[in-house]
Amino acid sequence: MAASGGNGEQEVTAVLLKELGGDLVSLGGAIDPRYFTAYNEAPGVRPCAVIRPRTVDDVSRALALCSRLKQPIVPQGGVTGLARGAVGLDGEVVLSMERFAGLEEIDTAAGTVTVRAGTLLQTVQEAVDEAGFALGIDLGARGSCQVGGNIATNAGGNRAIRYGVMREQVLGLEAVLADGTVVSSLNKMLKNNAGFDVKQLFIGSEGTLGVITRAVLRLHPKLAPPATALCRVAGYDAVVKLWHRVRATLPSVISFEAMWPEFYRFVAANTPGVTAPLAADDGFVVLIECASSEAAALATDAHEALEQCLGACFEDGLLDDAALAASTRQALEMWTLREGLAIDTLPHLINFDVSLPIGVIGAFAARCRAALGERWPHAVSLFFGHIGDSNIHIGVSLEDLPLHGEDAVDRVVYEVVREMGGSISAEHGIGRLKRAYLGYSRSAAEIELMGRMKAALDPLGILNPGKVL
Amino acid sequence: MAASGGNGEQEVTAVLLKELGGDLVSLGGAIDPRYFTAYNEAPGVRPCAVIRPRTVDDVSRALALCSRLKQPIVPQGGVTGLARGAVGLDGEVVLSMERFAGLEEIDTAAGTVTVRAGTLLQTVQEAVDEAGFALGIDLGARGSCQVGGNIATNAGGNRAIRYGVMREQVLGLEAVLADGTVVSSLNKMLKNNAGFDVKQLFIGSEGTLGVITRAVLRLHPKLAPPATALCRVAGYDAVVKLWHRVRATLPSVISFEAMWPEFYRFVAANTPGVTAPLAADDGFVVLIECASSEAAALATDAHEALEQCLGACFEDGLLDDAALAASTRQALEMWTLREGLAIDTLPHLINFDVSLPIGVIGAFAARCRAALGERWPHAVSLFFGHIGDSNIHIGVSLEDLPLHGEDAVDRVVYEVVREMGGSISAEHGIGRLKRAYLGYSRSAAEIELMGRMKAALDPLGILNPGKVL
Repeated sequence: MAASGGNGEQEVTAVLLKELGGDLVSLGGAIDPRYFTAYNEAPGVRPCAVIRPRTVDDVSRALALCSRLKQPIVPQGGVTGLARGAVGLDGEVVLSMERFAGLEEIDTAAGTVTVRAGTLLQTVQEAVDEAGFALGIDLGARGSCQVGGNIATNAGGNRAIRYGVMREQVLGLEAVLADGTVVSSLNKMLKNNAGFDVKQLFIGSEGTLGVITRAVLRLHPKLAPPATALCRVAGYDAVVKLWHRVRATLPSVISFEAMWPEFYRFVAANTPGVTAPLAADDGFVVLIECASSEAAALATDAHEALEQCLGACFEDGLLDDAALAASTRQALEMWTLREGLAIDTLPHLINFDVSLPIGVIGAFAARCRAALGERWPHAVSLFFGHIGDSNIHIGVSLEDLPLHGEDAVDRVVYEVVREMGGSISAEHGIGRLKRAYLGYSRSAAEIELMGRMKAALDPLGILNPGKVL
Repeated sequence: MAASGGNGEQEVTAVLLKELGGDLVSLGGAIDPRYFTAYNEAPGVRPCAVIRPRTVDDVSRALALCSRLKQPIVPQGGVTGLARGAVGLDGEVVLSMERFAGLEEIDTAAGTVTVRAGTLLQTVQEAVDEAGFALGIDLGARGSCQVGGNIATNAGGNRAIRYGVMREQVLGLEAVLADGTVVSSLNKMLKNNAGFDVKQLFIGSEGTLGVITRAVLRLHPKLAPPATALCRVAGYDAVVKLWHRVRATLPSVISFEAMWPEFYRFVAANTPGVTAPLAADDGFVVLIECASSEAAALATDAHEALEQCLGACFEDGLLDDAALAASTRQALEMWTLREGLAIDTLPHLINFDVSLPIGVIGAFAARCRAALGERWPHAVSLFFGHIGDSNIHIGVSLEDLPLHGEDAVDRVVYEVVREMGGSISAEHGIGRLKRAYLGYSRSAAEIELMGRMKAALDPLGILNPGKVL
């Protein structure tokens, strides 16, 4: 999309450079490819400029300027999302938050941390750990994703069954509107009903309604080392039964992840350096992780509690076999199997991240596999995911995928999601990649309402255009 | 406010009656005073009509009609809020949701309940208990408040430290816009990032952006009977230390409530039929309640865990004395003291419900008492509240309160809230009562943004006018 205000690219970059200065603005060949390369993809279109603010005021001035120029601008965090939400199109400006990083305060009485948007998730995790707390969010990209991006995409991750998703961690937020207005709601209270909760607008809207600059996140008591186990379960219905049993019995449960038989067989056979603790057969394999707070661990050992619970589940026929990790290394290996990077070696792999009501996920996987197999008899489809929070990932591989065949595969999968009342995006948002399918999970009335919100907050449409809506 | 479209009251009521019918519409003397009486107040202005829909379509037709007539309309639940948000002004229409009640589904696999807005909170609690689950929300008005109202005001209550406030319970929502459009987002998944989370608009906006008709709420494992204790603590800083210790040690903690010495002395002496388990002196008194899920209680007895934790806290000097409830009756008496209905006997009592960062609540109470005492030397001010979630209640009594003196008292209290960065409404919203003080807790930019949301969703301004903004 070219600058929509009729300004040529050269004119725009000249104004940006003049008003914001060479320290904040990079142009042309000085722009590193990482500012225009989506995760795991080839570099895309080079933006006409990259702005890297050092302060909230810099963000405000940059946005006010882009509003004046009617210049499309793409807010950017760590670019670890999988929906192409953080990279721009032709003629757009990228606003990278990487320089506005660091913790501003840990309030140990309130149990909150105030962070700048550009801070790496792992940096926050380590700092709050040092202060005797735990963050409610953890995910694989922790070392490269930024907190601002985590909030803008309402990140989920591995601890959502215990602490909820990112939205539940955000007590306060500061964002800059398209016109440069700074809206600061850096609340530290769990209860605050003074007027509309405006911060909710910016959480999960992928930088289309405002640019997140700072946030206050809730902290939880610091965790003791976790206890991890793999269990073999006969079928999906038994997985759901096991989930409800574990959830009710173990307050320390923090992850409950399921692997379908075909997925487990593949990763067990193809993950170098990892010996699968449970033999691969026709059963589902569930990874359960428990972690008590350090103080609670003194009274109740999570490892013991998990072992006891699994023993009782075995007696009651809820599982056929279980292996408890005896060391951190073994636990890590279990996670390595579950994370399933091994499937990336499959030809033309296409990844999906969808959610459905927990009770129908088993039927969904069966129907989805059948629909893919009907169209492409040699399709390989592998299912795994965060079952406790209704989220399932799918890896689909087609040896003989035709050019642009991804779209056809998308359509088959999302069609089944639509029929079964699921969401086409559990964790990664809509970005540019899933925009065409938004109507599969949202009604016309919902999408119309999203349009009203967009028009109210960004009437010129300069913020991350072409994303979500 | 008269009907703003220039229609006379008689004309409006005639059209409503004709289009919606006598079963749904009540007029004049047929309108019971409960439809125009705020909680604990004298009856207010009789609305020109009360509409009582039986279906979502009824709600949609009623709103479309009011839009056509430019007729102000006040959505109404159980009218148990304390901010006059659910009663109307002159010439307004009341939309009572009481007939659209009942549970539609308990999905035991997903762990969700789908309810109609007019359902009493207690009805939902009892039904999900029967199904082996617990609801995340509990509050004193459970027997008369409605779920729709709980969501519209983002209710908090006694379990927020464990499960969060109402917003955290709502997975899915259906609401009707001012123009009659039904926006149905009855999601059952914990993770769903397909587009903007439009349901957030309706949570906590007090019926000013749409009328909530149905909701999907998360369920938690069913709880075993709780263990309850009162502890005496030397000062507010020790209360905060105790909170963090208890929170980290007892995953089963569900309530953490503090009573300032003056409050406890008063309720201990003036609550008929209750013998205070701890003698009243100059210490703070904290009520702690723990409740494990039924299944977890088999392994760890909450009573024993609480006793052990309090013993260790005593040894570490975090508390001076403690009394564990030996029976349900004793626990109930502890709650009776904490709920403090006894203070309602004080002359001209004015209640406040504010929140502040946990660490500054002690200083806030001291400054607030000093500010009140400076202006009114004989003022009695009593502090108590849900400290674990940063929420404090204040009862102020002035024997010689002048006519309309409430405003002056409000101003003194809210001035201190403003100075210390708190919220003028923790739980009950803004309604009509606190509207003048919204700017004490929200910036001009935030309020301007609220105005944009209002204009985008209710351009004619017919939904609960004069509330919040």
